[in-house]
Amino acid sequence: MITASIEIICIGNELLIGKTLNTNAQWLAKRITTLGLKNHRITIIGDNIEEISKALQEAIQRNPHFIITTGGLGPTFDDKTLEGIAMALKRKLAIHDEALKMIKKKHRRYVEEGRMKRAELTSPHVKMARVPEGAKPIFNPVGTAPAVIIKHDEVTVIALPGVPSEMKGIFEESVAPLLREAAGEVTFFETSLDVTGIMEPAVAPLIDQVMHDNPYVYIKSHPKGEETVSRIELHFSTTAENTGLAKKRVSKALIQLSELIQEKGAKVKPVKAKS
Amino acid sequence: MITASIEIICIGNELLIGKTLNTNAQWLAKRITTLGLKNHRITIIGDNIEEISKALQEAIQRNPHFIITTGGLGPTFDDKTLEGIAMALKRKLAIHDEALKMIKKKHRRYVEEGRMKRAELTSPHVKMARVPEGAKPIFNPVGTAPAVIIKHDEVTVIALPGVPSEMKGIFEESVAPLLREAAGEVTFFETSLDVTGIMEPAVAPLIDQVMHDNPYVYIKSHPKGEETVSRIELHFSTTAENTGLAKKRVSKALIQLSELIQEKGAKVKPVKAKS
Repeated sequence: MITASIEIICIGNELLIGKTLNTNAQWLAKRITTLGLKNHRITIIGDNIEEISKALQEAIQRNPHFIITTGGLGPTFDDKTLEGIAMALKRKLAIHDEALKMIKKKHRRYVEEGRMKRAELTSPHVKMARVPEGAKPIFNPVGTAPAVIIKHDEVTVIALPGVPSEMKGIFEESVAPLLREAAGEVTFFETSLDVTGIMEPAVAPLIDQVMHDNPYVYIKSHPKGEETVSRIELHFSTTAENTGLAKKRVSKALIQLSELIQEKGAKVKPVKAKS
Repeated sequence: MITASIEIICIGNELLIGKTLNTNAQWLAKRITTLGLKNHRITIIGDNIEEISKALQEAIQRNPHFIITTGGLGPTFDDKTLEGIAMALKRKLAIHDEALKMIKKKHRRYVEEGRMKRAELTSPHVKMARVPEGAKPIFNPVGTAPAVIIKHDEVTVIALPGVPSEMKGIFEESVAPLLREAAGEVTFFETSLDVTGIMEPAVAPLIDQVMHDNPYVYIKSHPKGEETVSRIELHFSTTAENTGLAKKRVSKALIQLSELIQEKGAKVKPVKAKS
């Protein structure tokens, strides 16, 4: 079983100063994992061409199948993602006819609706159509700035906007099908167990034992809230060739660990099953 | 004016699969920025010794004054941060007496409260006291696992737990004073303007003009919600030697941009002032 691998790069000063909570990274990570791919790293950098270029080159060195970036595709001076990608891949930026058509179409609609006053495009509009040579623009069903896909040697770089509704809209319409195909039949399955009445150091050796007996299942303990409540979430996950096998593996580990924990006098309760 | 620089490394598979929203990164980024330091990058990796070591070495290469890690200090097998740091810095792990004392003290309290059954420490407890040689443990006022500080050449590496209440407790008690000292008199100031009735491409050249006239002020536009509402948040920020100067710089830019936007027939409204 080969798992397709991915890295995420989030671009925006607002993330580095803590102004914005990075819900995009979590949303993408969850969707990517559910589709059966393995997310290896998330990198967050500012609106700086050299930083974007460096982060992308470093990611390419680690050989993932896909790199998804978020942010920096809009019309303002600090939307620098495409310049950064062009620098990293040593490609020129050029106005892409199809991208310009997408932008014109949206602009015409906004003018008709009376929300833009000028009928002609301005230079900030044209900026959004300047993409690295060889890139393919992807239609943005929610906003104006097109996303772009660039195949570069073995890696596919996908640049998505930072506005969450636009990022999600493009992902579902144009990116998810690509990733699903790359993932093949691989399925991710996860479930959680709520444990009370025992502390983490006492659970640790039991997890070791069950993971040793169930080599394909990953179990992670998450102490909930403050230690004083002695409540732990145990999260079970696996990736397998099909859902049936994934569920079977997780169930076996879950039952074994539940029994071991109950023998210690603690209580267990399933949290929820997701697939 | 020298701005002290920092990078954040968040460790945990739960962040890479999108199970957990990374509120730690935002909280730390905001506190760090408010204290007057510049956060250059956030890296998120899984519970893997080699990955932790590589991410730390890469961060050290970029020469920040501080590197803060979150996660991976607990008692379970997948708490690998200290092993990863030891590998990156080429130091051995050794049981630290002071760290062990901190853990014993907490453990004794939990036994007295009836929440732990055994009076003696188990190997998962001792694991939390195995720190890289030369590291200094930091008391955890909320949980058991001590944080650690390691000075390595020019950089100070600070490893904090991943449980938010523990991370915040240690940060405020032991890390914030260090960072405040490193930042010196440097102050960060930010404020926002709520703009309605104009779209981002029309605002872009006005921002360019005001940033050109106010070289120390950074202005970033954030389209709010879907494009169809034509609402934009303009965020102004600066770092200066003192709060008075920072506020004065931001006010000047804010007034100039407000006037330019109002001349276009759009509305502006201050959001809030933070310092």
